[in-house]
Amino acid sequence: MAGGPREGRSLSLVRPKEISETVLASFQSCEDDRLRELIQALARHLHAFVMEARITEHEWEQAIRVLTETGQITDERRQEFVLWSDAMGVSMLVDALAHPKPAGATESTVRGPFWVPDSPRREYGESIIEQDSGTPTWFYGRVLDTAGQPIAGAELDVWQNGEDRLYAVQDPEAPEEHLRGRFLTRDDGSYGFLGVRPTPYPIPDDGPVGRMLRATGRHPWRPAHIHMIVSASGYEPLTTHVFDARSAYLDSDAVFAVKRSLLRDFVPRSPEDPDRPAAVSGEWYSVENDLVLVAAGGADRPRI
Amino acid sequence: MAGGPREGRSLSLVRPKEISETVLASFQSCEDDRLRELIQALARHLHAFVMEARITEHEWEQAIRVLTETGQITDERRQEFVLWSDAMGVSMLVDALAHPKPAGATESTVRGPFWVPDSPRREYGESIIEQDSGTPTWFYGRVLDTAGQPIAGAELDVWQNGEDRLYAVQDPEAPEEHLRGRFLTRDDGSYGFLGVRPTPYPIPDDGPVGRMLRATGRHPWRPAHIHMIVSASGYEPLTTHVFDARSAYLDSDAVFAVKRSLLRDFVPRSPEDPDRPAAVSGEWYSVENDLVLVAAGGADRPRI
Repeated sequence: MAGGPREGRSLSLVRPKEISETVLASFQSCEDDRLRELIQALARHLHAFVMEARITEHEWEQAIRVLTETGQITDERRQEFVLWSDAMGVSMLVDALAHPKPAGATESTVRGPFWVPDSPRREYGESIIEQDSGTPTWFYGRVLDTAGQPIAGAELDVWQNGEDRLYAVQDPEAPEEHLRGRFLTRDDGSYGFLGVRPTPYPIPDDGPVGRMLRATGRHPWRPAHIHMIVSASGYEPLTTHVFDARSAYLDSDAVFAVKRSLLRDFVPRSPEDPDRPAAVSGEWYSVENDLVLVAAGGADRPRI
Repeated sequence: MAGGPREGRSLSLVRPKEISETVLASFQSCEDDRLRELIQALARHLHAFVMEARITEHEWEQAIRVLTETGQITDERRQEFVLWSDAMGVSMLVDALAHPKPAGATESTVRGPFWVPDSPRREYGESIIEQDSGTPTWFYGRVLDTAGQPIAGAELDVWQNGEDRLYAVQDPEAPEEHLRGRFLTRDDGSYGFLGVRPTPYPIPDDGPVGRMLRATGRHPWRPAHIHMIVSASGYEPLTTHVFDARSAYLDSDAVFAVKRSLLRDFVPRSPEDPDRPAAVSGEWYSVENDLVLVAAGGADRPRI
């Protein structure tokens, strides 16, 4: 057998492509159509990546190690796989595919890792500030449908950080319900609540994602924003942000979540302003932000 | 802002592609050329997968959960990320790219998870059987270069399973050095050792990879084989298997590692056979298997 020509055709020149075809064929008897489509697409793109980039054995070992470390750092409070998805822009891509918006509807963006279920229900105009966290800000506006009609009884679930950069869920010292709350719109679709001006913050960067950002010359910062999930019977739920239009990092959000239509001005207001909320004594800001929901069922959805 | 036309161009129809371009551009200032190439190729193929398959939010959440569970089941003795790589055919693809072989050279295949470093050194002809494990088998042949010349002093690191399907490293009851060993070739390039006839076995299927195999209609079995790593000064190390040409699952190896050129006959031999090794009393097999190494430096390597 040594030295002589190989029996059958020489496989050397076609082998990687043949392996790929064999793997794809192995899924052919999968009875779940969608699963077969997904796993074959995954295999095809994974193989294309490996072949095109000509991944070496050493590089693949490093990739396995990075995935292993990602598993090790992930626990109930830290989800490093979601962070990879965010930092590679995949979360925003999935969001864009799931929520193509007709013109005029408020755009969606990532939920992020800091949402906590069952935020306290609060009344119109109430504050979500449970300890000093920066300059008070009056957030207000209306929830509307795409025809401009107000939606009464819509729920806004809001959460944000303050001047220490932290969300309450990240800070064992903070009151549990600090800087978050659920509000209902009034009959005219209006909402209003008192929060603070949010601050830019870095995504957790002491793990594999942080190492990737440093190695590739990227930074971990997100521009200042406040989160909202808006839901109302008969409408598609909307997960979005309000970005501070003057924030740093709007052009380089570490998770690619900025959309121009979501930028808002934080308007400086004085203590003497007659509209000053009762709970405010010094300087404050106001942010007007209407939110436009799409009817459920998606008849007016563009296909992308 | 409600209801009216969006300022600037309508982004709805191009958004996913725009997101993808933004993510690729974010890596443009990476100073390490190879890293930039790798991370951009990864992002491009990952995004193409998500867009082409139109991954939903629910499907992406499931993918994150599967990765998280893969991390949880991985420890010092179990590497579920490598198992994914094997079961998706990526390990074989990386191997094929790393080791294109000129005609006549022995083909490589995956190392698998059961190799253990520092196997015991054993003399020509010795047995690796330290407790009863099936029918004794005499493995023998020569290590040669591609011109057919013998390579003296080449090391064969061999490991295998027996009739209980387990490698010693999987079995706390088995002697630590059972069914493994390192042998050197003699002046004429020959080697010989006594092992057993190996048996098919399932890859670990009580985790996420096993669930994938069941859901897609695949099985976890590998055909019977024995592993070898062959190394000699001046030659490229060779990681390969000898497959039992009569084994089940040769056409559906769960990790896609079978190459036709690696199949060998296990020849039945009688107790009366004059070549019977001294340690054998009953029925036995013999397997002849020459191994052809490629000179280091790769001058004769095909590019694929």
